[in-house]
Amino acid sequence: MARQDFKPSTMLSPVPAVMVSCGTMEKPNIITIAWTGTINSDPAMAYISVRRERFSHKLIKDSGEFVINLTTANTCRATDFCGVRSGTSVDKFKKCNLTPIKSKTLSAPSIAQSPLSIECKVKEIIPLGSHDMFIGEVKNISVDENYIDEKGRIRFDKFKLISYAHGQYFQLGKSLGHFGFSVKKNSTKKRQREERK
Amino acid sequence: MARQDFKPSTMLSPVPAVMVSCGTMEKPNIITIAWTGTINSDPAMAYISVRRERFSHKLIKDSGEFVINLTTANTCRATDFCGVRSGTSVDKFKKCNLTPIKSKTLSAPSIAQSPLSIECKVKEIIPLGSHDMFIGEVKNISVDENYIDEKGRIRFDKFKLISYAHGQYFQLGKSLGHFGFSVKKNSTKKRQREERK
Repeated sequence: MARQDFKPSTMLSPVPAVMVSCGTMEKPNIITIAWTGTINSDPAMAYISVRRERFSHKLIKDSGEFVINLTTANTCRATDFCGVRSGTSVDKFKKCNLTPIKSKTLSAPSIAQSPLSIECKVKEIIPLGSHDMFIGEVKNISVDENYIDEKGRIRFDKFKLISYAHGQYFQLGKSLGHFGFSVKKNSTKKRQREERK
Repeated sequence: MARQDFKPSTMLSPVPAVMVSCGTMEKPNIITIAWTGTINSDPAMAYISVRRERFSHKLIKDSGEFVINLTTANTCRATDFCGVRSGTSVDKFKKCNLTPIKSKTLSAPSIAQSPLSIECKVKEIIPLGSHDMFIGEVKNISVDENYIDEKGRIRFDKFKLISYAHGQYFQLGKSLGHFGFSVKKNSTKKRQREERK
């Protein structure tokens, strides 16, 4: 079990690769962000870390708003494009055939082609070095009705979510179990043993 | 493209589900964390958000150290177990057949069965509500030598990394493209057109 040491770098993976929409309905922009995550459950909070020189950095800082749009196999090409091109030179919504739609709680638009959009208001900006971390409090979540079943449940399993690891986008593969499966199995076994008695 | 609104919650997904090791070689513990991510590239920094009532919260707060161990299909059961059980009542390393190994820069151990471990020193603790966010600076990365090829490259593709979404663990599936594929394709096409002239 020998190990080899490597110098510090950003190797945490897999990570999300979300499309963050910002600006306004009239002048919307999108930036793809992998340095993102949930940071608090109650109240629900999420962060995005953005390089100061990015066009969206100023938009988000000035407005205090951003929307995290989940990404899927269907929007993978757009996700990649919005990470490598700058909104200073191209209208990313137009270029990627994406549609800005009104958010419920923000002036910043959401992306119609995303199955689930998380509207966030900036609570704090923490400068860390290359990136500023925007701490966002979740204000609303909107879901494409095509992904809500008759019982009102969000069908995450139909989203075709993508993940990002070592420079590649991946579709989620085989399910390996539900949260709690490592302890549920035993109780199920026990119950079955009891039932057999 | 109608949308339905939902109240704020923690729906960002997929997210990582890493095993965070803490404590000491003599009294090690593990806590599984999904509220984690990279927050800065230079210097490399990562965070974990931990509920104050968790056993590991005190260990990490007191020592100022934690290790993010990437998780795989092989350690999925242990990953789940270390998320639902508390270190107050069980030795998770023993129970999960995991081996604590010395980290290079910390007193906190790394996990031998993880292909890649990220050693972090706590720079700041930010209370957010239900969770405290531990901001960590990456001090060293250690990789299982079985995943390093003859050319010295880390073979991430052999890790069988897992991701967490809507209450389930997933193995990464089909690759949908490398970072930059959305703009590379065009230039390749252009070059091919040029070559045909």
